[in-house]
Amino acid sequence: MTIVVVGSVALDNIETPAGKTTGSLGGASTFFAVAASLYHPVSMVGVVGQDFPQEHLDLFASRSIDLSGLQVVDGNTFSWSGRYLQDLDSAETLDTQLNVFADFNPVIPDAFSSAEYLMLANIDPDLQIQVLGQVKSPRLRVLDSMNYWITSKREALTRAIGLVDIVILNEGEVRLYTGENNLYLAAEQILALGPRVLVAKKGSNGSLLALRNANGKISFFLAPAYPIKHVVDPTGAGDCFAAGFVGYLARSGDLTELDLRRAVIHGAVVASFKIEDFSLGRLVSVSMDEIIARYDELTAAIYFDHPAEQATKGLSEPLII
Amino acid sequence: MTIVVVGSVALDNIETPAGKTTGSLGGASTFFAVAASLYHPVSMVGVVGQDFPQEHLDLFASRSIDLSGLQVVDGNTFSWSGRYLQDLDSAETLDTQLNVFADFNPVIPDAFSSAEYLMLANIDPDLQIQVLGQVKSPRLRVLDSMNYWITSKREALTRAIGLVDIVILNEGEVRLYTGENNLYLAAEQILALGPRVLVAKKGSNGSLLALRNANGKISFFLAPAYPIKHVVDPTGAGDCFAAGFVGYLARSGDLTELDLRRAVIHGAVVASFKIEDFSLGRLVSVSMDEIIARYDELTAAIYFDHPAEQATKGLSEPLII
Repeated sequence: MTIVVVGSVALDNIETPAGKTTGSLGGASTFFAVAASLYHPVSMVGVVGQDFPQEHLDLFASRSIDLSGLQVVDGNTFSWSGRYLQDLDSAETLDTQLNVFADFNPVIPDAFSSAEYLMLANIDPDLQIQVLGQVKSPRLRVLDSMNYWITSKREALTRAIGLVDIVILNEGEVRLYTGENNLYLAAEQILALGPRVLVAKKGSNGSLLALRNANGKISFFLAPAYPIKHVVDPTGAGDCFAAGFVGYLARSGDLTELDLRRAVIHGAVVASFKIEDFSLGRLVSVSMDEIIARYDELTAAIYFDHPAEQATKGLSEPLII
Repeated sequence: MTIVVVGSVALDNIETPAGKTTGSLGGASTFFAVAASLYHPVSMVGVVGQDFPQEHLDLFASRSIDLSGLQVVDGNTFSWSGRYLQDLDSAETLDTQLNVFADFNPVIPDAFSSAEYLMLANIDPDLQIQVLGQVKSPRLRVLDSMNYWITSKREALTRAIGLVDIVILNEGEVRLYTGENNLYLAAEQILALGPRVLVAKKGSNGSLLALRNANGKISFFLAPAYPIKHVVDPTGAGDCFAAGFVGYLARSGDLTELDLRRAVIHGAVVASFKIEDFSLGRLVSVSMDEIIARYDELTAAIYFDHPAEQATKGLSEPLII
């Protein structure tokens, strides 16, 4: 019944206009697991080195995150150093030390091989495919990736995309992968590869949910971002978005178009808490009540009229994913 | 009862990835007047040269646009040449021939001096101030501007902003004017100068409506853009947005926050028709039924939940602008 997430665990060095941190807890799997644990039990599959502080393992344990898939091996933990300038929507990588992550060979513990929800965070697409082979028949397979794999491992990434239900990418990654500038056309190209759903994240501009219905028709949901005036550190915002999204779906247990739309809004809200502090500073103290409060604020912030019943009547029909 | 628009009338040469045009009808006042005439009677105040084709004057007349404020003088009409690359959100100016527009001295005919709705399209802010002095007590004063005036006539622009009710700018212009990258904080800075409302347009990412309530509290409306897959020419999209916005308000006759939100959506819809063809190609044939259809589509495309009654209860109270 758990959500299994496979991805990086890192110690980050980050500079933003609001300050800097050294050796702070990071990595896609970290952000996803801690955030998704607000919604549903999570199991992490990843690797850290001997230098990985016990306090971080304690944090994971305090969130009831299952760590039986987290390998602790000789060497140092993956480390990313990055800088954000005034435009907080994009990072500049200053240094990447793969360390123990370079030889990461994800192994799904037997106990999780029947997991219902599988999050393939941003790792080598060949490893994503390898993980897909280890999980029997997940209800939902979600894939993230990044520019690096789009340019260096395009074929493997295309195969991986063809094997999952939902793809989550930044709008820049969607354009880079498809070569199409128009985001709606680009989304259609990605759905044509197999997935039923694409979420294109647009940072402070919200996101686009593109969904292919059972009859092949594609519909778009235009989602807002939660307004944040003082962004401290966007690192991990995308992973927290994915966590709110997958976490909400796992908690809801249903898969209608309406569930997917609400899941996107939960993603936006969880990401909005993430970016208000470095590392997990704000996120670890967030409550479900606070999440619901921002969700409710967003219902009001986008309201201008009620849709006709007819226009939304298909939204509550179960999807076969 | 009329909407008076003051701004440029132009003959444009435009290149986009979809093709090119030469000497096509353009200018902020043109786009605004033709689009707003779908909603409400419009009067144009502007200037053209002797070269201005009769067919364009006939087009204005066919929309019942009052041309008594349109000066026809010796010389050639203002001409703008621009190019859009793959990213259709920003234009590169290839050439600007001010011609008769260089000495434009806007004169509001006596018949319009009691106009209720005044649209100050993008012209020299000193001229915008001069026009404000010629209209007795408009119910609504709306101002547009551009980068050029922000950098070259900042003081005059600040004075003009302080004299109007609503400012409509692109997000890039909002950031340039305020020096603030965060759009919410930047919006608050502009509202602090006097206007009750700022609309920050974000192209295909929709727009932000920031509104200062009677008690000084600022609220945000997060508005989508209407999804367009095949953008042909964005020239004039901002003017058409303003036209849908002001046109809807004039037609509605009310000024509640809900009216302003719906006006923003009308702006988005009218702009969406504009960009589907060069010049006024698509816009001249648009009907109110088609506008309402896209408006209704947008209600459905952003829906994920109904807001609590309490959260939206203030939206229908009349604003004192």
